[in-house]
Amino acid sequence: MAVNGDDVGLQPAPPMPWFGMDIGGTLVKLVYFEPSDGGAEQAETLERIQHYLKKHAAYGKTGKRDVHLQMDNVHVGGRQGTLHFIRFPTSEMSSFLELAKAKGMASLSSTICATGGGAHKFEADFHAQVGLGLHKFDEMDSLIRGIHYIESYNRKECYYYSSPMDRCVKMPYDFSDPYPYLVVNIGSGVSILSVRSPTLYKRVTGTSLGGGTFLGLCCLLTGCETFEEAIALAERGDSTRVDKLVRDIYGGDYPKFDLRADTVASSFGNMNCKEKRESTTREDLAKATLVTITNNIGSIARLCAVNEGISRVVFVGNFLRVNPISMRMLAYAMQFWSKGTLKALFLEHEGYFGAVGCLLELMRTGQGHSWDGEGLH
Amino acid sequence: MAVNGDDVGLQPAPPMPWFGMDIGGTLVKLVYFEPSDGGAEQAETLERIQHYLKKHAAYGKTGKRDVHLQMDNVHVGGRQGTLHFIRFPTSEMSSFLELAKAKGMASLSSTICATGGGAHKFEADFHAQVGLGLHKFDEMDSLIRGIHYIESYNRKECYYYSSPMDRCVKMPYDFSDPYPYLVVNIGSGVSILSVRSPTLYKRVTGTSLGGGTFLGLCCLLTGCETFEEAIALAERGDSTRVDKLVRDIYGGDYPKFDLRADTVASSFGNMNCKEKRESTTREDLAKATLVTITNNIGSIARLCAVNEGISRVVFVGNFLRVNPISMRMLAYAMQFWSKGTLKALFLEHEGYFGAVGCLLELMRTGQGHSWDGEGLH
Repeated sequence: MAVNGDDVGLQPAPPMPWFGMDIGGTLVKLVYFEPSDGGAEQAETLERIQHYLKKHAAYGKTGKRDVHLQMDNVHVGGRQGTLHFIRFPTSEMSSFLELAKAKGMASLSSTICATGGGAHKFEADFHAQVGLGLHKFDEMDSLIRGIHYIESYNRKECYYYSSPMDRCVKMPYDFSDPYPYLVVNIGSGVSILSVRSPTLYKRVTGTSLGGGTFLGLCCLLTGCETFEEAIALAERGDSTRVDKLVRDIYGGDYPKFDLRADTVASSFGNMNCKEKRESTTREDLAKATLVTITNNIGSIARLCAVNEGISRVVFVGNFLRVNPISMRMLAYAMQFWSKGTLKALFLEHEGYFGAVGCLLELMRTGQGHSWDGEGLH
Repeated sequence: MAVNGDDVGLQPAPPMPWFGMDIGGTLVKLVYFEPSDGGAEQAETLERIQHYLKKHAAYGKTGKRDVHLQMDNVHVGGRQGTLHFIRFPTSEMSSFLELAKAKGMASLSSTICATGGGAHKFEADFHAQVGLGLHKFDEMDSLIRGIHYIESYNRKECYYYSSPMDRCVKMPYDFSDPYPYLVVNIGSGVSILSVRSPTLYKRVTGTSLGGGTFLGLCCLLTGCETFEEAIALAERGDSTRVDKLVRDIYGGDYPKFDLRADTVASSFGNMNCKEKRESTTREDLAKATLVTITNNIGSIARLCAVNEGISRVVFVGNFLRVNPISMRMLAYAMQFWSKGTLKALFLEHEGYFGAVGCLLELMRTGQGHSWDGEGLH
């Protein structure tokens, strides 16, 4: 793997604590590096922050540490240690800033590095409320660097579903020579990148129909409040009562276009009929929303893969968290509609690559460089 | 124009009345040819049917004749006359069959030709309830033939919007040498065809997020009952309160990816927030649904156009009826995202091309040929 978190070169490492932050439209992803090689700089304030983060797996009502994703014995900036993975809603940013202030972050003159749209939006707040400057890194550079770094440490990071049209078994995938590949990053919206080498990549397209659309529509249609609730509803629902299928229009299969009777012809296409609306449950509506958004992302990803002449499609982002339905659907759709020429791949650390990559960028450069600059490519 | 409705060749024309029918997932489109050259076959039953159709512009509660689309002095099957354009909901098919029976259709041993998915689904009903056989024609052949036929008679059929990012003025477009072009047929779902000559075309892809999705979601989200009502709501709404925009995430423009502050980053992305849901109106939700579906179709059409190396994109289908918002958005999106290399085109007879083409196929072949056969291509 060409990318190495240890390639700190001549730059001196910044003072601890080391955080990488990816501030998205819905969630903030926070990565914290805890050194385990007994350096001398464990000041009291630093100990306090570390103790607080490690003692809990939940912070307030909405902050969570994904303990199962923790990575031990990794190297960052010439040090050995553990990466911790934490997330909280972007809407709670002001509580986070208060906490950072209360824990004395500013007194450590720590370097906070951030990526994602919120790195711009909240820069002034970081400065005004905590007295901290924000080092901003490019979203795409951070994402790609994070993927390659984590994958180099975790040989089971990448997986696929074998027989997605049948038993659908999760299998490890050797991602050590992955080029070229497509990254479909499904957050609130969706960005699609083509990656041809560790340093050669570009944004191909995007769609605004992403995880935020799924959650927003589910909240409106079912009265649910959280992503977890929406997914739980969808797991118990039947979308075929909501959608108009090929068989509802054609009376059966439509073999000329390879359309099976149970293919969706019109998403939500039965819901203009009062009787059908009345016999539909919240669960059915949540499932139909999930199926609609997932299949649409699959279609667009497939068109991009064909355009770019790429067969490996890596799906990442927090839309896939606790969401095996969508992963299996994507695996199935990629294989079925491409007649087996495309392969859907997934990564265990789903939504954290931008945050990790951003931390690594900090080590590489010593400090943030211009957001609007050219980055690596 | 290579396609001519008059190319009846050696086939004798079938007995009147001549209907062409396109039975879609939501609407039945019915085209009726009224001869004006005083043939001898005006039997009493035929007169009665013609009188009924022409006397009204509305049939029952839901059937409508689009009088403004009527085409006089056209030639079909060696005869001169007028084409009438009628539509009714597919859910009213049983009422239509009763009417056809009451008007004595079966006694004329008329040939009913049909295309669209419903030509399969309702074949048995036609036979059992009216005693009529159904001649089924391929959907794609009918659509393409219908487009070229109508365009050859109506030089103002095809139009575009000049300055779609500014004043957005409707302008005629010379479609006499249109190849290659893409057809994006937006009905309940969406089919996309590439057309390289009058006889060389193929289905490229499709999406289930179409007009049926817009209407179904609007019915669920706003309690409206009809397409016209949904469009009227959308005309008064503001989608930027429903969607999460680039500025909501980034705090402003995102110039690196050419994303303006008012670009939608996540459709319905604000609706996971209770306060924002409560300050949103039915009109806002209808507008957001329209914008979401329209932009998604635009994105997919654009990817297909790039894949196929085609710059003219013709949007048809009844989703565009009474829907200038979507047409302007498509015109804008095609121009903006392609940096001016793609052109969105529209046709006045929106959803009727399949029905017209199906009538012409009948004249060409004397009777329906196999649906599952190879057709023209």
